[in-house]
Amino acid sequence: MPAVPVTLPHHRYDVLIEPGALDALGSRVRAVAPASAALLVFDRALEASHLPRTRASLEAAGYETACVPFAGGEENKTLDTVHGLYDVLLDRRFERRAPVIALGGGVLGDTVGFAAATYLRGVPFVQCPTTLLAMVDSSVGGKVGVNVPQGKNLVGAFYQPVVVVADPLVLRTLPPRELRCGLAECIKHAVIRDAGLFDWTRARMAKLLALDPDSLAELVAKNVAIKAAVVIEDEKETGVRAHLNLGHTFGHAIEATVGYGRILHGEAVGLGLLAAATLAGELGIAARALRPEIEDVVQSAGLPRRAELPADARLAEAMALDKKVAAGRIRFVLPERVGSVVIRDGVAPDAVSRAWASIRN
Amino acid sequence: MPAVPVTLPHHRYDVLIEPGALDALGSRVRAVAPASAALLVFDRALEASHLPRTRASLEAAGYETACVPFAGGEENKTLDTVHGLYDVLLDRRFERRAPVIALGGGVLGDTVGFAAATYLRGVPFVQCPTTLLAMVDSSVGGKVGVNVPQGKNLVGAFYQPVVVVADPLVLRTLPPRELRCGLAECIKHAVIRDAGLFDWTRARMAKLLALDPDSLAELVAKNVAIKAAVVIEDEKETGVRAHLNLGHTFGHAIEATVGYGRILHGEAVGLGLLAAATLAGELGIAARALRPEIEDVVQSAGLPRRAELPADARLAEAMALDKKVAAGRIRFVLPERVGSVVIRDGVAPDAVSRAWASIRN
Repeated sequence: MPAVPVTLPHHRYDVLIEPGALDALGSRVRAVAPASAALLVFDRALEASHLPRTRASLEAAGYETACVPFAGGEENKTLDTVHGLYDVLLDRRFERRAPVIALGGGVLGDTVGFAAATYLRGVPFVQCPTTLLAMVDSSVGGKVGVNVPQGKNLVGAFYQPVVVVADPLVLRTLPPRELRCGLAECIKHAVIRDAGLFDWTRARMAKLLALDPDSLAELVAKNVAIKAAVVIEDEKETGVRAHLNLGHTFGHAIEATVGYGRILHGEAVGLGLLAAATLAGELGIAARALRPEIEDVVQSAGLPRRAELPADARLAEAMALDKKVAAGRIRFVLPERVGSVVIRDGVAPDAVSRAWASIRN
Repeated sequence: MPAVPVTLPHHRYDVLIEPGALDALGSRVRAVAPASAALLVFDRALEASHLPRTRASLEAAGYETACVPFAGGEENKTLDTVHGLYDVLLDRRFERRAPVIALGGGVLGDTVGFAAATYLRGVPFVQCPTTLLAMVDSSVGGKVGVNVPQGKNLVGAFYQPVVVVADPLVLRTLPPRELRCGLAECIKHAVIRDAGLFDWTRARMAKLLALDPDSLAELVAKNVAIKAAVVIEDEKETGVRAHLNLGHTFGHAIEATVGYGRILHGEAVGLGLLAAATLAGELGIAARALRPEIEDVVQSAGLPRRAELPADARLAEAMALDKKVAAGRIRFVLPERVGSVVIRDGVAPDAVSRAWASIRN
């Protein structure tokens, strides 16, 4: 099966990408986490479509499989949900070797991953991302965690999976809005470090939106390779991994103020990319032509280019709670051009205001 | 300052041991976690005795120091307490670089450490152990976590501190019962891998119980060296680190059934050492003379040799929830002689019953 290896100093795992990969999940898991039992947490929306074959694959590989439904949505990415998973694991007396498997999108994977990271100080964790966004971003790299009332992803851990199994066929049943959210992260990857991927994505956009399986599989593989390279360079986000936050300082503030669920993460990131490009232009870091160049691709992906936003002061407050804040200064990842970004702090508030204005309805 | 280094593949830190070390805490923390703010969580019992000089040292080193009291006792080693710490950190907008400092015993250190491990996916964590038990055991090695209603330490993480600062002078104000609990872990270390330390401890027992500063400092240094060596060999407890669980499979079951707080961890470990020695004798792993040899030292430390215990079935159930259970089999760490242990599973229940009987009142 085609694999992108993620080789860290203390741990190595594969991201397996192939149409039909979920049918081989059981043997793939057994190769890295042999045990008699497994916990499969699945997105309730997949109960009829992909749960049966996933479960069958695990049981055929000898796992007594407990299946727990998860209702999607950021509002369930909470410590309460994690505690509910602890209770399932404790009541069934799951042991240290038994794998915990996340079948769903990024919200589910982050939440289940945090439970796996902390139950018995860590049990084997398997990611089966079922959204484009989760395949190209959250399932690779080991960031797990939950939201708290004060903000997004503020409690969590760095905890790597033992294997990631991505089945691009699943994307054919993904709601179009979710697909577009994944494309936002793909555009982000391209802007950060791959002008060739930016052109490829623009050229393939129609095929991608039409769910062409080969194009989707290629898109996932190209983007996982970028994500994996960044994570290998800098697992704990002390350096270059911060580049992946392009669009996220704006994006998280949008989600926190507009409301998780009312706007999706990928939509907020798409808007954040545009705001970052405008800010880069304002600061003379990028040509002013960069914003329309990125906006053109964001628009072709069907992502919003404007949103109803609260006043600047409220957005600034939300940004100040971001994890990327250092010594009281908000750090922005800003594009110099397609394929290259820089980090800046101490940015003048009026420049940030103009960036907000450029995406405000 | 005398230091025992703990060198792991991904991280290195020092355990600093010196009378008066707390007065130098600020500069020691600044060397590994420079920031403008620090959170100091302290045992309420230390508010008058050691908090003022600890806080003064941090503030002299330039940390704006938020001090949060913690009421000791296993009953506060909970997810609720961790959430309370998250709220303090969030409400004060603590950043990723700001250190979280635990001034107290093992219960406090484990709980605060879990909050530090998971707030913003991990912030710098400093252990200032103030009990003998915490100095020689829990503050070194990175096991952090909390209890849940189903059992002890079942939720947590492996998360190493950036520095450990142990001031043996603090032990002079430690309640005698707490000192004895620490001695139980020291006896355990000796039985696991150092017959010379066993003899040294027996010979110095009167001085140790009389709180002779030089003897206490030497005891801490010798025991930290053993703990550090084991952790360096096997951080994540896939092998030899399991030896440190000598006495703990019995001990945890005692705590879980008798009730946290009614019996202290060190007392349960002392009883567990005796039960393990008896079980080793029953199984022909050790000479039957080993039990009285260990019991003699346990008794000289003033630790209990018997306790009111529930029926075997209830104890067996508590043991089955232990993290060390693998493939449904309870794994016992058992002494062959002073200085050497082995691991056994599939032990006959009647042998375990005789071990329980040997410590039941």
